[in-house]
Amino acid sequence: MEKLTIVKVGGGIVEDPVSLQQLLKEFSALHGNKVLVHGGGRSATRIATLLGIESQMVNGRRITDDKMLDVVTMVYGGLVNKTVVAGLQAQGVNALGLTGADMNVIRSHKRPVREVDYGWVGDVEQADGEMLSALINKGVVPVMAPLTHDGQGHMLNTNADTIASEVACVLAPYFEVTLTYCFEKRGVLHDAEDEESVIAHISEEEFHHLTQEGVIAGGMIPKLENAFQAIHRGVAKVMITRADNVDGSRGTLIEA
Amino acid sequence: MEKLTIVKVGGGIVEDPVSLQQLLKEFSALHGNKVLVHGGGRSATRIATLLGIESQMVNGRRITDDKMLDVVTMVYGGLVNKTVVAGLQAQGVNALGLTGADMNVIRSHKRPVREVDYGWVGDVEQADGEMLSALINKGVVPVMAPLTHDGQGHMLNTNADTIASEVACVLAPYFEVTLTYCFEKRGVLHDAEDEESVIAHISEEEFHHLTQEGVIAGGMIPKLENAFQAIHRGVAKVMITRADNVDGSRGTLIEA
Repeated sequence: MEKLTIVKVGGGIVEDPVSLQQLLKEFSALHGNKVLVHGGGRSATRIATLLGIESQMVNGRRITDDKMLDVVTMVYGGLVNKTVVAGLQAQGVNALGLTGADMNVIRSHKRPVREVDYGWVGDVEQADGEMLSALINKGVVPVMAPLTHDGQGHMLNTNADTIASEVACVLAPYFEVTLTYCFEKRGVLHDAEDEESVIAHISEEEFHHLTQEGVIAGGMIPKLENAFQAIHRGVAKVMITRADNVDGSRGTLIEA
Repeated sequence: MEKLTIVKVGGGIVEDPVSLQQLLKEFSALHGNKVLVHGGGRSATRIATLLGIESQMVNGRRITDDKMLDVVTMVYGGLVNKTVVAGLQAQGVNALGLTGADMNVIRSHKRPVREVDYGWVGDVEQADGEMLSALINKGVVPVMAPLTHDGQGHMLNTNADTIASEVACVLAPYFEVTLTYCFEKRGVLHDAEDEESVIAHISEEEFHHLTQEGVIAGGMIPKLENAFQAIHRGVAKVMITRADNVDGSRGTLIEA
């Protein structure tokens, strides 16, 4: 089975020209099949502010009303996605920008209103691994924006970590998948203040233990829950690291 | 040889929700292979204005400085393109949004500065008919934004009529291509004031004649020049009509 690396990078990395150039170089240097999933939240907030639209966040998620949906569709699907695609093409990588609507690659439904009305936010229903694997086998490198659609004509704002893990899971029958989550730290840290305290490997048991102890907290918990879920659904490896280690040289590894 | 219809619609049609819905329905109803090329100038101007960026036009072309390039990349590649793609998917059309950067489908160079510095505006160098025809043969319907790239990491703002004719020409070896330009009139008119005065057929000779007489003037001249050039490069038919006649039932026909 051929290998495939899926790299998810947050908005902060693709929005800063210097870190973007570094990412493009390192991602381009990765051998073999690959997919890039990007965020873009900071740019969306910046453009929304310039347009006089207030960004409302609840539990770290963006409330997406009609106007904000236009903003994220523009920024994620247009500005950020095409900047990355053009940048990768310049490095000789045959990038193809995709939202979930393109070729119906990821279909979602609008999140039901419970305590919070998140607006035009999508929960993934299905991703098309067959279509994606066919593209990848042709040498195409999908560059995925955090947007999906509902099949009824609406785009939906969708968490980039979720896009990355859903894509990883539906590609697991076709490839030996490594899913690499990049964030601002070198990995899961024993001591949040010490970048050298990266936990090299973590099992699900250790994860629960470290969460109870409070060593793992905040946004790292859903990230690791996502990671273990991906492993249970057939992904070979999940790596949590910093964008300057997309080659997997350093970071926290979760294995099946 | 299978038939292929390439429909080019201006920004005005895709930017108004009512005319967009009508277009989506009529385009979806077209039988066989098809491609949609869209503009988006009005939305770009509107978003630019909201962002405090002035739109400067010279000879009907938009001066595209750094900030305006961001705006057109967002609006054409994101907002307009994904709205159309999601709308077509809702009609059961397997749409794929593309800029020229995606899979390196259309490469351009920045227009050289002569009397006017148009900024980040691209003149097309080459379009990839093989890649596009492979997608189309799989049932994919490309939805093309008026953006290309230079292969060096820059997106370039590129006229949608030009995109449509370049794509038509490179697909001519693979399909019997009809290129349909939609604009605000029913076709080339004998009398600009009379929508019933559509010239049903026009030859190149008649075109030159009518131009000399002043019957054909303004923006219609480059549109027809483009049309005849496409015919010389292998396109079977060019239709100039209104968006509510994308089925080719009415309009001005140019044939090889």
